Amino acid sequence: MEKDLIETRRFYHKIAEPAWMEFKTTINIIKDLRSLGIENISYGRKIHREDLIFGRPSNEKIKAYKESFDLEADFDTKEILEGYTGVIAEIDTQKPGKTFGFRFDIDAMPIRESQSVTHKPFKEGFISENPFAMHACGHDGHLSIGIFLAKWIMENKEKLTGKYILIFQPGEEGLHGGKSISESKYIQDIDYFFGAHIGMGLPSGKVGVGTTGFLASTKLDVIFRGHASHASALPEEGKNANLAAASALLNLETLAKHSKGMARINVGVIRGGTARNAISDEAMLKMETRGASHEVNDFLVKRSGEVIKGSAIQYDLDYEIKIAGQAPSIDQANYKFYDEIDSLLKTKGFDTIKSPDFKASEDVCYFINKVNEKGGSAIHFIFGSDLKAGHHNTAFDFDEKTLTTGLNVFKECILYLNKNGKS
Amino acid sequence: MEKDLIETRRFYHKIAEPAWMEFKTTINIIKDLRSLGIENISYGRKIHREDLIFGRPSNEKIKAYKESFDLEADFDTKEILEGYTGVIAEIDTQKPGKTFGFRFDIDAMPIRESQSVTHKPFKEGFISENPFAMHACGHDGHLSIGIFLAKWIMENKEKLTGKYILIFQPGEEGLHGGKSISESKYIQDIDYFFGAHIGMGLPSGKVGVGTTGFLASTKLDVIFRGHASHASALPEEGKNANLAAASALLNLETLAKHSKGMARINVGVIRGGTARNAISDEAMLKMETRGASHEVNDFLVKRSGEVIKGSAIQYDLDYEIKIAGQAPSIDQANYKFYDEIDSLLKTKGFDTIKSPDFKASEDVCYFINKVNEKGGSAIHFIFGSDLKAGHHNTAFDFDEKTLTTGLNVFKECILYLNKNGKS
Amino acid sequence: MEKDLIETRRFYHKIAEPAWMEFKTTINIIKDLRSLGIENISYGRKIHREDLIFGRPSNEKIKAYKESFDLEADFDTKEILEGYTGVIAEIDTQKPGKTFGFRFDIDAMPIRESQSVTHKPFKEGFISENPFAMHACGHDGHLSIGIFLAKWIMENKEKLTGKYILIFQPGEEGLHGGKSISESKYIQDIDYFFGAHIGMGLPSGKVGVGTTGFLASTKLDVIFRGHASHASALPEEGKNANLAAASALLNLETLAKHSKGMARINVGVIRGGTARNAISDEAMLKMETRGASHEVNDFLVKRSGEVIKGSAIQYDLDYEIKIAGQAPSIDQANYKFYDEIDSLLKTKGFDTIKSPDFKASEDVCYFINKVNEKGGSAIHFIFGSDLKAGHHNTAFDFDEKTLTTGLNVFKECILYLNKNGKS
Amino acid sequence: MEKDLIETRRFYHKIAEPAWMEFKTTINIIKDLRSLGIENISYGRKIHREDLIFGRPSNEKIKAYKESFDLEADFDTKEILEGYTGVIAEIDTQKPGKTFGFRFDIDAMPIRESQSVTHKPFKEGFISENPFAMHACGHDGHLSIGIFLAKWIMENKEKLTGKYILIFQPGEEGLHGGKSISESKYIQDIDYFFGAHIGMGLPSGKVGVGTTGFLASTKLDVIFRGHASHASALPEEGKNANLAAASALLNLETLAKHSKGMARINVGVIRGGTARNAISDEAMLKMETRGASHEVNDFLVKRSGEVIKGSAIQYDLDYEIKIAGQAPSIDQANYKFYDEIDSLLKTKGFDTIKSPDFKASEDVCYFINKVNEKGGSAIHFIFGSDLKAGHHNTAFDFDEKTLTTGLNVFKECILYLNKNGKS
Repeated sequence: MEKDLIETRRFYHKIAEPAWMEFKTTINIIKDLRSLGIENISYGRKIHREDLIFGRPSNEKIKAYKESFDLEADFDTKEILEGYTGVIAEIDTQKPGKTFGFRFDIDAMPIRESQSVTHKPFKEGFISENPFAMHACGHDGHLSIGIFLAKWIMENKEKLTGKYILIFQPGEEGLHGGKSISESKYIQDIDYFFGAHIGMGLPSGKVGVGTTGFLASTKLDVIFRGHASHASALPEEGKNANLAAASALLNLETLAKHSKGMARINVGVIRGGTARNAISDEAMLKMETRGASHEVNDFLVKRSGEVIKGSAIQYDLDYEIKIAGQAPSIDQANYKFYDEIDSLLKTKGFDTIKSPDFKASEDVCYFINKVNEKGGSAIHFIFGSDLKAGHHNTAFDFDEKTLTTGLNVFKECILYLNKNGKS
Repeated sequence: MEKDLIETRRFYHKIAEPAWMEFKTTINIIKDLRSLGIENISYGRKIHREDLIFGRPSNEKIKAYKESFDLEADFDTKEILEGYTGVIAEIDTQKPGKTFGFRFDIDAMPIRESQSVTHKPFKEGFISENPFAMHACGHDGHLSIGIFLAKWIMENKEKLTGKYILIFQPGEEGLHGGKSISESKYIQDIDYFFGAHIGMGLPSGKVGVGTTGFLASTKLDVIFRGHASHASALPEEGKNANLAAASALLNLETLAKHSKGMARINVGVIRGGTARNAISDEAMLKMETRGASHEVNDFLVKRSGEVIKGSAIQYDLDYEIKIAGQAPSIDQANYKFYDEIDSLLKTKGFDTIKSPDFKASEDVCYFINKVNEKGGSAIHFIFGSDLKAGHHNTAFDFDEKTLTTGLNVFKECILYLNKNGKS
Repeated sequence: MEKDLIETRRFYHKIAEPAWMEFKTTINIIKDLRSLGIENISYGRKIHREDLIFGRPSNEKIKAYKESFDLEADFDTKEILEGYTGVIAEIDTQKPGKTFGFRFDIDAMPIRESQSVTHKPFKEGFISENPFAMHACGHDGHLSIGIFLAKWIMENKEKLTGKYILIFQPGEEGLHGGKSISESKYIQDIDYFFGAHIGMGLPSGKVGVGTTGFLASTKLDVIFRGHASHASALPEEGKNANLAAASALLNLETLAKHSKGMARINVGVIRGGTARNAISDEAMLKMETRGASHEVNDFLVKRSGEVIKGSAIQYDLDYEIKIAGQAPSIDQANYKFYDEIDSLLKTKGFDTIKSPDFKASEDVCYFINKVNEKGGSAIHFIFGSDLKAGHHNTAFDFDEKTLTTGLNVFKECILYLNKNGKS
Repeated sequence: MEKDLIETRRFYHKIAEPAWMEFKTTINIIKDLRSLGIENISYGRKIHREDLIFGRPSNEKIKAYKESFDLEADFDTKEILEGYTGVIAEIDTQKPGKTFGFRFDIDAMPIRESQSVTHKPFKEGFISENPFAMHACGHDGHLSIGIFLAKWIMENKEKLTGKYILIFQPGEEGLHGGKSISESKYIQDIDYFFGAHIGMGLPSGKVGVGTTGFLASTKLDVIFRGHASHASALPEEGKNANLAAASALLNLETLAKHSKGMARINVGVIRGGTARNAISDEAMLKMETRGASHEVNDFLVKRSGEVIKGSAIQYDLDYEIKIAGQAPSIDQANYKFYDEIDSLLKTKGFDTIKSPDFKASEDVCYFINKVNEKGGSAIHFIFGSDLKAGHHNTAFDFDEKTLTTGLNVFKECILYLNKNGKS
């Protein structure tokens, strides 16, 4: 099984695709799931909440990508190819029991993969064929574990009880897709929820149990719209978008202070104006806020809105703020459940570490909070893995043995909770 | 007469008083005018337009100054001592003719006069007795010419025709008083209007005829009101007035560009906060705009308001903008009248220069525009004078011979226009 | 004894004096210590390190204060009255043993005390007689405990072993005095060091043992020196200190981000310019940095210096940065010692809380780090006290029973460590 | 001749090319001049001063453009195709006389021409074939006049005296090419110099004689180089180029004030950062300064350098400032010569206007100043032309009758000065 799992991971590594354009990826996951005999597979618009989709590319961009290749499928791929990517599969054992949810992210990053001879995917021929995307964060591994977990559940359906919902989420990078899918009507009423990430600073063999330290974060795209004018001849007729953007940038970066823990603001990108001698009529910022908690992050988002509005007023401009991505922190971590699973995994021989600190944002927290709120139990793992280069690096590569470890962690949880889960 | 004129100037130099606190100055002018036999002398609230008074000090400040000395007068000084300073005197020859208006400013500057032995007022004992004020811009000279012009008119009343209105205006510095007095009901329907300034870069003996280049200007006081908080322990509870003031200052200083001529903005004073470790709850700016024309200045005032409002919104603050002073440029200079007067003065032996450039602001322009609009003819002179130090310098001192020159210019204008004025 | 202790505290409350001007306070402490028969009393320049004195007022200010009263003493007070305040007393039992150090801060705050009838010091007649200072942080209590601890040591000298150094430190507020005194040659080689603060959020009766959470902090005074010019007539000749100060303020406030814990910058005060129509030739900022550790605070100080230098260069100005105060965090807390003392105090019936979080800065940390580095054991207590109003409030007043509690804590520590201290 | 002149203009309109890539344009001008029998034709590196070339595109860009077409020529085009564009032709009558210089700019703008049916070049089939360039400022007209002036000089060589230098300058837009060519050794010692621009607000038939109001201007490209870091996880390791660029932009825009006349600064373009969650490691500004005179412009360039340097220091960055273009104002306009030529043209029936105000920048001023300094006489004309849309507009089109007018103006000047020029 380990060999097949690695083959599957390498297949998906080759067809890496970025957020909302995981066309080949989604279609192949469906094919793989259908080949396992799973009938209840949902995809397309119906698994999304249109109003909660963040950071979707323009229709032009989606269309251009779609037209760059041919895909055959014996099911309707229309909505997928319109950008409604991702898959939710449900396996019902038809026996009373708990509902288990698993979330696997499937998107790659918009970077070009390393072609160095020391980079294993290149050397061994499974480098990304897409020059505009690379699995540099291990999501190819995550989704492959998901497919093999589905396989194992199907093979053991007789022995198992309850229902199993496998969520293949698009657009985790940039926190684009989690909110939309987490609000999907296809994933309500989960008793036990599981998420996981490969790598994240833990070595191969180590399993982080009950990850903490997820930062609440909001990604904002800001546009200032002014009025162009010849800067020398008619300066008073211009409405200067560059000045507003610079004023906003400087003042935004002063906001990151809060008594309730870590607070961050970054304006990573600024673009304004087209001609040296014209007063700029348009400028944009790409920014993010982060906070140790919702409260801190919400404060920063609110204050950012005030700074942006004020900057627009300073130069008599129109402005627009769009959420390009978002993730919460974990509201109420279920430490009791973490302890229970940690004991289980130790018993089963795993080398665990409790509650490792994520120090970053993940929209898996939408699922975790939702499940916890409804009285379920949610947990996130880190599947330690020796890395060749850091996450998001063009030479990122993880230890493929991690795939089996991860799969086994999920199996053991299912087996244990089938037996010991609270009714 | 020259000796008396100099004596009078020195008397007023000694009792220098700043804007809206020209108490001794106003009362002594009234006494002087009454001693000439002038009956129609107006002062106090009735010569002002309450809503158009700019830059008035607090009542506390006025009261404190008033209580620092005793003043005897056989007329009612109550309103003068409440800050309604200035005098308007009217001399009616009771013969048909034109109405002549003359404006003299009477305020000193809030600086301490030089006590250097090389400074003539100190050496000869007529230095300002008021440590908080000094006549460093020649207004002591202006008002003394006014008193002696009144004397000459009274002495020549039989020979003259028409009416003579002599306006002793408070608060020219900072453009505080001109607007209020110019709208006074006591100075309507002037046919010929005259203003003048001593010095201004011209040497003794030179007379500038028909001054141009007055800059429209507005003086604004800006206050930002936020909320204090411990900067380290509870930063999110503060509303930072210092940051808003700094943002406003920087962005205000970017505005001074206009295709229609000179545009200037200066934030000369910034004050914010009281404690190093507290988020500042209040900050203020003292600023000014200047423009080659009303249009330019009005544009700058409007844009300043937007920048200030935007800065307040950036930090979620309240704010207030108060006009502390204002003066227009000349709307329509009457060059034909300037030419006529220039010819006259040349004929009478004066060494004239036509239309010198003022390069500064003067609220005498309120009077000039008003008279011109109503079809009268208004003119402003510069009475050249060798200066010991520049205007506003603590060692400023002008050549006292200038007083006679100035007085004679006015006399010749009256005599000429009594004869040649259009009916 | 409790009554005398309260009397003493009230005496010092009445003569409240701010940093570096604790003239009456210092002289009275010396008198009190001499009256106990202590011979080894040091004061004046020799107990300071001139180069490490922060935030000293101008000589003019010190002189003016000194001249406002007469003080008689039968010892040389000259240097004290020049601003070298504070006292170090040493009591040597002449028996082998440990060296104990105690630090008491003696300065008041530069605020005017409440004259409300509900304010006990006013009602009972021991309100500060100095309109420019008030003991609003309990240092009157600290120093009174110090005097009575000296009294007890002298009375029990026969029973005790080792040496006792009592440090009466000037200028704790603003972190002015700790560095200078901590480097004094008079306080080397301490085996056991004790500091304490009254109040700080703990109720009467509670004793905080082994305070943590001291923030490293630096207080900076920044001056920009430019060149004045008429803002409208000759703008190019000005070097605009207001613009540099605003640029510095905005950019400084963007710096407070660090991965190693809390980071803060606040520019609490900005003052620039004198005349609305002049380009400002001078502006100043009063700012502070704070960090969870030296590393964070040092990073902020370094980055602040770069922003300030850059802002000066932007406007072609000279600038100056002066340290107005400074305190470190605790480098290596001696938790073992805290546990030992906590056990002791519990045994003796005190209601203790371990390692309370200070959440502020205190220059007592200079002493703590120094003692710890040399192998000694240092500890800081919080003597809980019900407060009428918060620290630094004009109606601050603590529960005087706290004085006895504090004194007893120190006595028990001495008795215990005389017996059990490591040799 | 008028028809041929129009044909020529349309030919060059079709092959529009931007600065330093006027490959087809340069080569065709050379061919045209050779076909007239002119022997002394210089081009390539030798007509330039390498160190004074501004705004040259990268070698990659030049190479890519060169490879996009084939050009045959029976002379060496190597250096032209490396970006050393432009031509200088000299016609020597071999008779004693004056040296006449004429400058024609040959570059197009980097914009795409309008394909509207109302746009004559599109309708009549001579629209630019280069999607990346369009003659939207009339330089196609200028250079065509130049070629036909050469033709006329060659045809009338026997009648004429002296030497004729025709300068076909690359890169006038952006002020790229004037400085380099004006310093060329091929154009020294000119007695009479002529430049001209079509349109510029004057109607067809009108000839502006002795253009004034050229603004001194400098175009600067600024790069800030910092250090990228994860904005949330390791903020202290970043060196934030976006913050420096915003600080520079805001502070630069405050500088445009000068007592000696119009002063402008515009930062038309800002680009910084690549990833929302990374501290930006690079940012750039495209800016320009303008001044009524060299003095004003030089002041702004100097002050800009200080603001940029200071901003880099604020964020501990490296920076680079490159001159991307530059032009002076006219140092000493030769009004006597303007009057002389104006009289001549009036006599010859032209409808002239004296000394029209250009209100923009032109690097022809380098030539004008140089000739004036050496005692020659330089003049610039505006050849009025009814425009379909303003300069730099994608639908710009001038009245082709202007070509003959312009050519005739030059001819009359030559004939007159052959006869009347000072020896």
